[in-house]
Amino acid sequence: MVPHLVTALTGPINELEQRILESTPVIERWFRLEWMEHTPPFYTSVDVRNAGFKLAPVDTNLFPGGWNHLTPEMIPLAVQAAMAAIEKICPEAKSLLLVPENVRDTFYLSNLATLQKIFYMAGLNVRLGSLSNEITAPTKIDLPDGSQVTLEPLQRGKRRLGLKNFDPCTIVLNTDLSAGVPGILEDLHEQYLLPPLHAGWPTRRKSTHFKAYEEVSKRFGKLLGMDPWLINPLFNQCGEVDFSSDAGLECLRSNTDALLTKVRRKYKEYGINEKPFVVVKADNGTGGMGIMTVRDVKDIDNLTPKARARMGTGQAGQTVTEVIIQEGVLTHERINSAVAEPVVYMMDRYVVGGFYRIHAERGEDENLNAPGSSFVPLAFEQSAQLPQPGVKPGASVPNRFYMYGVIGRLAMLAASYELEATDPEAENLD
Amino acid sequence: MVPHLVTALTGPINELEQRILESTPVIERWFRLEWMEHTPPFYTSVDVRNAGFKLAPVDTNLFPGGWNHLTPEMIPLAVQAAMAAIEKICPEAKSLLLVPENVRDTFYLSNLATLQKIFYMAGLNVRLGSLSNEITAPTKIDLPDGSQVTLEPLQRGKRRLGLKNFDPCTIVLNTDLSAGVPGILEDLHEQYLLPPLHAGWPTRRKSTHFKAYEEVSKRFGKLLGMDPWLINPLFNQCGEVDFSSDAGLECLRSNTDALLTKVRRKYKEYGINEKPFVVVKADNGTGGMGIMTVRDVKDIDNLTPKARARMGTGQAGQTVTEVIIQEGVLTHERINSAVAEPVVYMMDRYVVGGFYRIHAERGEDENLNAPGSSFVPLAFEQSAQLPQPGVKPGASVPNRFYMYGVIGRLAMLAASYELEATDPEAENLD
Repeated sequence: MVPHLVTALTGPINELEQRILESTPVIERWFRLEWMEHTPPFYTSVDVRNAGFKLAPVDTNLFPGGWNHLTPEMIPLAVQAAMAAIEKICPEAKSLLLVPENVRDTFYLSNLATLQKIFYMAGLNVRLGSLSNEITAPTKIDLPDGSQVTLEPLQRGKRRLGLKNFDPCTIVLNTDLSAGVPGILEDLHEQYLLPPLHAGWPTRRKSTHFKAYEEVSKRFGKLLGMDPWLINPLFNQCGEVDFSSDAGLECLRSNTDALLTKVRRKYKEYGINEKPFVVVKADNGTGGMGIMTVRDVKDIDNLTPKARARMGTGQAGQTVTEVIIQEGVLTHERINSAVAEPVVYMMDRYVVGGFYRIHAERGEDENLNAPGSSFVPLAFEQSAQLPQPGVKPGASVPNRFYMYGVIGRLAMLAASYELEATDPEAENLD
Repeated sequence: MVPHLVTALTGPINELEQRILESTPVIERWFRLEWMEHTPPFYTSVDVRNAGFKLAPVDTNLFPGGWNHLTPEMIPLAVQAAMAAIEKICPEAKSLLLVPENVRDTFYLSNLATLQKIFYMAGLNVRLGSLSNEITAPTKIDLPDGSQVTLEPLQRGKRRLGLKNFDPCTIVLNTDLSAGVPGILEDLHEQYLLPPLHAGWPTRRKSTHFKAYEEVSKRFGKLLGMDPWLINPLFNQCGEVDFSSDAGLECLRSNTDALLTKVRRKYKEYGINEKPFVVVKADNGTGGMGIMTVRDVKDIDNLTPKARARMGTGQAGQTVTEVIIQEGVLTHERINSAVAEPVVYMMDRYVVGGFYRIHAERGEDENLNAPGSSFVPLAFEQSAQLPQPGVKPGASVPNRFYMYGVIGRLAMLAASYELEATDPEAENLD
């Protein structure tokens, strides 16, 4: 099935698509050189929003779930990329321990089954070690497609983590550690722990990521001779917000105002007749709960107590005081009538696939990563990963996806910079 | 379209398929470790024959054509593998010079267009430098699918090879140099020349390749606990055959007899009720012209003058005196009623695709790489590259293709050993 994409077929993004297609060898070489200097995250997914006049990543996930939404055609690419990753990290490895999110719904477990399959095909015995106290013995769980996953209790030795009779060389985390780093994962110096603990939300800050992305987009803009704003969402941050008091919102108010003014100026420069908006999110948490679309500073003053409570509480129940105020990027993509945003999946340095996240009940300026969202696989009649030179900009789904893959990789590169900057072990070297 | 495969669904190869599927992590790790010690050829295609009771590579091509027969789904895998190859060889490269076979038919030129596309997508400006004296200026040639290729005259400097205003870091050969190594390709020490000149037929010997393959198959057999004969075609060689005289055929006669006896013994061991046969080929040439199926030593005595002349003349018109006598492997695969053999394509260390070569007018014990053959793409409903554990042996096309990919990679590994052993520069180091 080919998703029917209704994208904004005019405006700067079509020019950008054209520019990106013409520059394929230049872009690929640029990435090649970047990856000589910087290590890509182990795996990454990036939410991209396409406003027609602007195309930007809005969320970079370093512990991506949803691998089960990739189409069968994409899996060999993921396997090949996983092979390349393993060759670099631990070529002698026989086994890999996958530590999942502490979630038991079958959607998430299907994601684990897909990851397990990918790494098995890449040449590793893969087993799942659960962080849950409830898993005290190997527990088989049936999945809707007839397959199974087995969760097993983790066993921690003095220096190593494994399962009963299973001592892996590499541990892959599929949990973003929102609830904090469990002690069982700390001080593992003999095994590869991927991604590293400081890629989890206890350490990560969205503002650090988007600062790195700003730098990446400036360099990429220079490479292609284009305004980096076309791919870069502006942002401000507040380090001390108190959602429980009016006074505590002052930083949020002033920064929102300043950002809206900046965006308005940019819209004017490009003759864009849309109303600017910003998105307020917890600086140190995953998307979903504490995300608020603000179209006017007055919106902040008019926050209901319920909305305040929601914004002030993180995913793991902690109090949110650090927020990022990000330029909102409309998504003009639709599948049927539902608002859609593409999600790009990467393994090591390679784009291996993606899908559309759609939400029938949300607007084009709202967060789609929320209950009620669903997924439409990107299954193209022709290969999705490869551009088709010569096709009119905006008219070719593969060409569009190639561009999304470039943006996804720019965000991944920013994550690589970010992880270097926040690496606690690198600091010790200074 | 899914090709309807009629394969021999009983016998040892189904057990082998089962064994190979169960051993995926072990096999992939084994290859991983091999590639730590040995460099894979730049690209490789391997003809595989499946007799139901035996599965073996019969030809390993280090300058594969036919890339245009890969399906669109396979191209992203080739691109990703090409990216991995370039990263290792010459990450700073901006451009690549492709030197094709001196052939102008549109089938071959479509192959070049596909290779050009693959390397372009991997991030290189690719141009075609012709060895033909007739190409004195850039020459555009239209292809049946509406695309074009441009052949350009090579320009040789003292130390480098390129085109006008095009000085590449890497030169990829798509010619097997059957007619000898052109002087223009010699003494290029500043650029990467891939595959190296000694991978061409002036240096290569099939006997050296299959000697290396024998070694590889023994080690693989040990790994999986199976008789390496199941995947290894036995062979003898004759260094001095004179097809123009009866006396000159004595070596061929005695070796054929000895080999047929060996094969008969193996058939008896496995209870195989087929008539053994051998295939006689020039030791130093590509398939096609001088290939002869011999079912009985008497066949050699009864050779017609025409057949003798054909066997005694190599592809480039030279006299053939070195031959390899190889155990013939039946192909029990059929597409509709035509005899079929799978061809596996690899880029760097990765299996990226394949197709079936079929020939309606040839028998199951004959060479199919001959005029009149055609190609059936391997387009599966489900991904062809990945096995499906749990499916009955012989019943799953993807599982079968995974096995072919393993055999293809064993032959590629043998080619890697072979190229190491015949490397003229490595000898200088001793």
